Amino acid sequence: MNANIAVLEGDGIGPEVTAQSIKVLQAIGKRFGHQFMFVNGLVGAAAIRQVSDPFPEATETLCRRSDAILFGAVGDPEFDSNPKAKIRPEQGLLRMRQVLGLYNNIRPIMTFSEILEASPLKRERIEGVDFIVVRELTGGIYFGKPQGRSENGELAFDSCAYSKYEIARSLIYAFTLAQKRQKRLTVVDKANVLATSRLWREVAHDMSKNYAEVELSFLFVDNAAMQLILNPKQFDVIVTENMFGDILTDEASVITGSLGILPSASIGDSLALYEPIHGSYPQASGKNIANPLGSILSAEMMLSYSFNLMKEAACVRAGVQASLKAGKTTADINASKPVGTSEVGDFISNYILNSLFTPGP
Amino acid sequence: MNANIAVLEGDGIGPEVTAQSIKVLQAIGKRFGHQFMFVNGLVGAAAIRQVSDPFPEATETLCRRSDAILFGAVGDPEFDSNPKAKIRPEQGLLRMRQVLGLYNNIRPIMTFSEILEASPLKRERIEGVDFIVVRELTGGIYFGKPQGRSENGELAFDSCAYSKYEIARSLIYAFTLAQKRQKRLTVVDKANVLATSRLWREVAHDMSKNYAEVELSFLFVDNAAMQLILNPKQFDVIVTENMFGDILTDEASVITGSLGILPSASIGDSLALYEPIHGSYPQASGKNIANPLGSILSAEMMLSYSFNLMKEAACVRAGVQASLKAGKTTADINASKPVGTSEVGDFISNYILNSLFTPGP
Ligand SMILES: CC(C)[C@H](C(=O)O)[C@@H](O)C(=O)O
Ligand SMILES: CC(C)[C@H](C(=O)O)[C@@H](O)C(=O)O
Repeated sequence: MNANIAVLEGDGIGPEVTAQSIKVLQAIGKRFGHQFMFVNGLVGAAAIRQVSDPFPEATETLCRRSDAILFGAVGDPEFDSNPKAKIRPEQGLLRMRQVLGLYNNIRPIMTFSEILEASPLKRERIEGVDFIVVRELTGGIYFGKPQGRSENGELAFDSCAYSKYEIARSLIYAFTLAQKRQKRLTVVDKANVLATSRLWREVAHDMSKNYAEVELSFLFVDNAAMQLILNPKQFDVIVTENMFGDILTDEASVITGSLGILPSASIGDSLALYEPIHGSYPQASGKNIANPLGSILSAEMMLSYSFNLMKEAACVRAGVQASLKAGKTTADINASKPVGTSEVGDFISNYILNSLFTPGP
Repeated sequence: MNANIAVLEGDGIGPEVTAQSIKVLQAIGKRFGHQFMFVNGLVGAAAIRQVSDPFPEATETLCRRSDAILFGAVGDPEFDSNPKAKIRPEQGLLRMRQVLGLYNNIRPIMTFSEILEASPLKRERIEGVDFIVVRELTGGIYFGKPQGRSENGELAFDSCAYSKYEIARSLIYAFTLAQKRQKRLTVVDKANVLATSRLWREVAHDMSKNYAEVELSFLFVDNAAMQLILNPKQFDVIVTENMFGDILTDEASVITGSLGILPSASIGDSLALYEPIHGSYPQASGKNIANPLGSILSAEMMLSYSFNLMKEAACVRAGVQASLKAGKTTADINASKPVGTSEVGDFISNYILNSLFTPGP
């Protein structure tokens, strides 16, 4: 196949990890006879510096014309430490999600037995953890209007809103996913306090009739934040609103031993974007120490979700597993004998090109 | 001294755990020559059933006339599972916090070496953890107006607002607390997305000039949810808004080995309420299996925070520690040879009455 991939490297370690997943996709193209075309676009602080806009129109056009988007990270301490900054890199990310309609963020939390020791949790609690969080990505308090300050500056306000329609399209995705997996769906909300959460609960209740074989349960977000650490094996598919999803997925990342390995997909009606869940990690930028597995596994999700190339995706996974087994990992996992960001990328693309890998049926 | 204590047992396990802390306070009164008077008031589902109001006026009056409030828990599955319930027990709790002006919720996270094994986290990550979360309790999305549904029912909305004044009174408390401790204060927010968070950051920045010896830092809530598990020892005092505080304190409770042991204080200008952070835990209700330590340690906080009885508070702590050492603990901590809720209360009040305890200077 031929595919056009928009590459938005962004800030901090974004460029260096993205370079590794491009390497990996090129190796896949070579081995399996596909043609991936990569075109770069500006985003984040890098885009503010060059064109004063964290998500320029040219980037939007590029994304719309592409078959999939490979995203690095955005965020820069220069803007964080200035509470009065008028334009912030994150605005680019949020606007991008909204204008491209990427309303479902899919974050799988899987463990690799090779690196379980790196987890702060005891092995018996996490061995075999395998769940997926569906986070609503274009609604809630992230996008509610009005947002801002009173005229005298004494008061600040944000707004949270959800329509049945917005809730339903995330729930449909989550129910369908649960159907294909262990058939357990957990809706996380704060229905004892929030009106929006009560609407989530109502829509989920109504919809569950259509998915009778899926076991539906509800968890308050404070309890969910506990359960994720106490007993993460209980989960199969979790679905939740934007802000709760942001908090819980970062929290859940500690289970696996490193935030650095976790991928995500942000999926809309026609477009999808693939992005490691780690941020721009500015302290590590340019040092060749960042873990590229989050980006590489995001590329793997692209192969399966956007291109339906299941054999190719399995080959990437096998390469990742081989790198973990061989100890070819960065310092976040392997403190004693780490290798660099680009060495991990080289190892996995070499594996793809040269291994005897043959996927199962 | 003489003190009038309002007792709001509430729902689920509320009554049985509160009975233990009353026992403990009575023992303290006897040993140290104080007179504690207890008067009960209705709250939560129990109050809805009896007088159709989860926080009746009579209870409010009782609270205002008392020197401190001992609170159990509210919440009942009958109301949770009915998304259309007009009155919910939690409304009583929220209204109470608001009308009594209990705007700072103080949640200490401490570890007891005797029960570290019960934690899902590895011992080396949590040994010696000792921090306090100051959660703003009467503002934010919990109380923002408008909240509700559009007329056609298709849309739900919540509002989040904070004034500089509300933010400042929580920050002053937190800065002052940090001054008395390790002098490190972490403000948790989502300033890269929320206008209210940017105001928190601004007020904290401005105020930090008055607390030059306190090291101030900021953490995004998603990162904080990770750091709490990855490296909880880094924290001394954390301060945050209402909803983030709700999520993060429940999450942090897993560090200690059991949610059941954690106390809290909710403090306003003139009144204070003491409450275990666990909820009503209806599955355990009436079975004499709930852990009373959260309530007993809340009574301990009452002794020191409201009555300035430091020796007495130390005596309660010593009793709790003795119960842990003797293995006189409930099943959440001690699965193999648990004792009942009331046996824990008996053990600790006997310790208070009969031990050779003499507090340090
Ligand atoms: C950078 C930030 C705005 C963003 C979010 O909160 O959505 C990030 O934390 C994420 O999860 O992708
Ligand atoms: C019961 C609920 C409304 C309450 C809250 O969210 O504040 C509880 O979780 C708590 O933390 O005291």
